[in-house]
Amino acid sequence: MGRVKMGAVVSLDGFIARDDDTVGPLFDWFGNGDAEWRWSPRQDEPCRTTLASKYFVQSVYPNIGAVVIGRRLFDLTDGWGGVPPAGEHVFVVTHTPPAGWKHTDTAPFTFVTGGVAAAIEQAQELAGPDRIVDVAAGQIGGQALRLGLIEQIVLHVVPVVFGSGRPFFGGAGTGDPITLGNPSRIVQGDRVTHLLYDVA
Amino acid sequence: MGRVKMGAVVSLDGFIARDDDTVGPLFDWFGNGDAEWRWSPRQDEPCRTTLASKYFVQSVYPNIGAVVIGRRLFDLTDGWGGVPPAGEHVFVVTHTPPAGWKHTDTAPFTFVTGGVAAAIEQAQELAGPDRIVDVAAGQIGGQALRLGLIEQIVLHVVPVVFGSGRPFFGGAGTGDPITLGNPSRIVQGDRVTHLLYDVA
Repeated sequence: MGRVKMGAVVSLDGFIARDDDTVGPLFDWFGNGDAEWRWSPRQDEPCRTTLASKYFVQSVYPNIGAVVIGRRLFDLTDGWGGVPPAGEHVFVVTHTPPAGWKHTDTAPFTFVTGGVAAAIEQAQELAGPDRIVDVAAGQIGGQALRLGLIEQIVLHVVPVVFGSGRPFFGGAGTGDPITLGNPSRIVQGDRVTHLLYDVA
Repeated sequence: MGRVKMGAVVSLDGFIARDDDTVGPLFDWFGNGDAEWRWSPRQDEPCRTTLASKYFVQSVYPNIGAVVIGRRLFDLTDGWGGVPPAGEHVFVVTHTPPAGWKHTDTAPFTFVTGGVAAAIEQAQELAGPDRIVDVAAGQIGGQALRLGLIEQIVLHVVPVVFGSGRPFFGGAGTGDPITLGNPSRIVQGDRVTHLLYDVA
């Protein structure tokens, strides 16, 4: 089955967006360097980062098969107009599939009403054994981590403090502490520090 | 004036303690290595960490003059029995000084009712130009950061996820994002990653 990773760009105080869903300077590092690359061949404008950031992202995400997101991100992006931001298929965890989304019949998007575990299972089947399943951080990723479904956590930590916002581990809830391994990689870019953790 | 640093041991999701004020495995790295050192000459049992962690802490905190904490930490520790955990004086930010603390007349502790800025000012006067003022993270540290009073932020990040608890930047409140520099140092210990940021 595809390896399940949870990742996002995050402020130093742990937020993937501000309360109003803006991201402040979180994505500045996608445009402050000379090394060009794309998350997906469908991406028009390339990212331009430091070489260190490019190598980190490309080695951690060599081949994304499917993406699992929550309803909030779907609504915020309008499902990226029906084009997956990476991988070939997007699984959206939602209680109620959107009525009348104009790309419903044509886009490689599946709305999963059975919860995050069901969505990850479908994503793994689609990704197959050799490709990655990328689970968005936040409510969905936190729930998946608490359920033991995440194998690796990727944080792109930006040196900014928001004070409040939407937590990277938002869905982890309460309970016993979740133990991770020491970070297996730490890479410094410009306005971003990349951290890679295996879940113990 | 003494350099003002804000620091703490923190979970990967940004908490310096759990909701019940326990710290889970946050302090494990103080005892999992061979390199002995002490925060203060008054500390009975030394820390035993990796050499990397020892060097990091000793170089970032070469000489603490005074410590600024909030009332919660004071109450949780009963003011460490009147003995500062580091430095020679502790300034406690509180609305109401404790009645009947048995060390009030003898301990080098000052209860500051004028807020965090007043406490840091007094701490800097005591520390003088060559020593550090160490401000506890959490409510007090976050407030001081928002007020522009923190020069350097030190995070000892432990690879554990709590899900909820007491935030490292708890007092930062809402408002504009607070921009930091790229981390000037990143040091990996065992069960801890040390990050040092200068405030921009």
